[in-house]
Order: sequence, then structure tokens, then C-alpha cells
Amino acid sequence: MSFYDKLKFNSDGLIPAIIQEQSTGRVVMMAWMNRASIETTIATGKTHFWSRSRQKFWMKGESSGHTQTVKDIAFDCDGDTLLIQVEQIGAACHEGYKSCFFRSVEESGDGFKTTEPQLETPEQIYGKK
Amino acid sequence: MSFYDKLKFNSDGLIPAIIQEQSTGRVVMMAWMNRASIETTIATGKTHFWSRSRQKFWMKGESSGHTQTVKDIAFDCDGDTLLIQVEQIGAACHEGYKSCFFRSVEESGDGFKTTEPQLETPEQIYGKK
Repeated sequence: MSFYDKLKFNSDGLIPAIIQEQSTGRVVMMAWMNRASIETTIATGKTHFWSRSRQKFWMKGESSGHTQTVKDIAFDCDGDTLLIQVEQIGAACHEGYKSCFFRSVEESGDGFKTTEPQLETPEQIYGKK
Repeated sequence: MSFYDKLKFNSDGLIPAIIQEQSTGRVVMMAWMNRASIETTIATGKTHFWSRSRQKFWMKGESSGHTQTVKDIAFDCDGDTLLIQVEQIGAACHEGYKSCFFRSVEESGDGFKTTEPQLETPEQIYGKK
């Protein structure tokens, strides 16, 4: 049986993909894939996603150079989420952090704090406009 | 500023929450939260979700005893995904695996394989019907 037969895409034909840096276990981002982006991810060994805001197929790192080399693709019991292990080049977050999850809720209330260093500024990553 | 102001819920009022076992880094599941389930999660220190299929508010482990004690709640740059570190009691997956992501795509094609041991059967967890 093909693993595609186990997947449940949502009404927009999309499935969320959690991206984890294999060497550190750090969850670096979550993005959405359609069937074509999964096929391209498997064929090329680099993560490809579907941008809901831009309605566009994209390869992670196509602008920044911060590509993700795929090491493993897992799927959950319900077949509605992917967990992809990668080797991450540079910052995964477009704001220059290793992980998009660089802020956490403070224990004392509903404020938040930054929990990791900014590796680069967006201007350094994408160049000044 | 409240961290709630940073969150973007979808058109159903939901946000996906990735659950990671803090001690091992294993991503054990992803489920959906609404604002009430986030507030209850913070107030009680135990994860609470919104079931899209059952249209029901639930505490993880309410049937199985496999609760999750919250250690950290992070949110991503776009404010549309949560990453929650937990202490996981027993199997997170209702199929008896530590993680719901117990199957991976095989390198050779589009087949898949089971990558971790089943700790309990569903009958052991939920009792025979």
C-alpha cells in the first residue's frame, strides 16, 4: 500500500507538515503541503510547500538559501499530519531565528518572552529592498 | 501585550498545537485548540484540545489516563501554530504508541514502515468494549 493512501488532505487539498531538525530535535516550523509538494519533496530530497497566503508552490530556502534536506517523513495515526526530519541550513524562520517557535508564554501570566538568539536579521537573509 | 493578541485562529476559531515530549524531543502528536482550550491548558497545566471530528472539548488522557503536563508553550512567527512541551504519561497515541508519528515512508518508494514499538494495545488502554 502506498503511504499516499493513508493521508487525509483537508478540503483545500492540504496537509500540515511539522519540520524537525533531526540533529537537535528542535521543531523549526510548520507549513502546509499538497500532494504535488509531497511528491516533489520526495523526488528532490528538499522540502517544498504550498503557501496559503501567496497561493504558490515554493521550495524552502529558494530566496534565503536556507534549504532543508529531508532525512525522514513520518505521518500520524489519523493520516492528517506529517512530521519531517531535516538537516536545516541556517535559520528556518524568515525572521532570522533557527526556529519559528522563538517565543514562549511567560509562566507568570499571558505575556511572552523570546527564548533563542536571532542568528541574522531579515535584511541580512533577503537583502535590502 | 498578551500572547493571545499574537495568535491567529483559523475560520473555525482553531489553531494547531504540536505536542513535544520535553525530555526526549519526540514529537508525539498534533491536535487543535480553541481559545477556551488554551486558557484551560494554562489554568490547569494539563493539555486540553478541541476535537474537530467529535466537536467536543477534551482533556488529553481523560479516558486513557495518559495525561500531558505542560512545561512550555511557544508560538510561531506567524502566530498560527503552537508548540507545547510536555511531560507525557504513557502512550500519547490512541493506538498505543508513544508517538502518533509511528510510521515513516520507506526510502525505496512510497511504502511505509512502523518505526517504534507498540507499548499497549487500544484494548489495554481503553478496556474491552
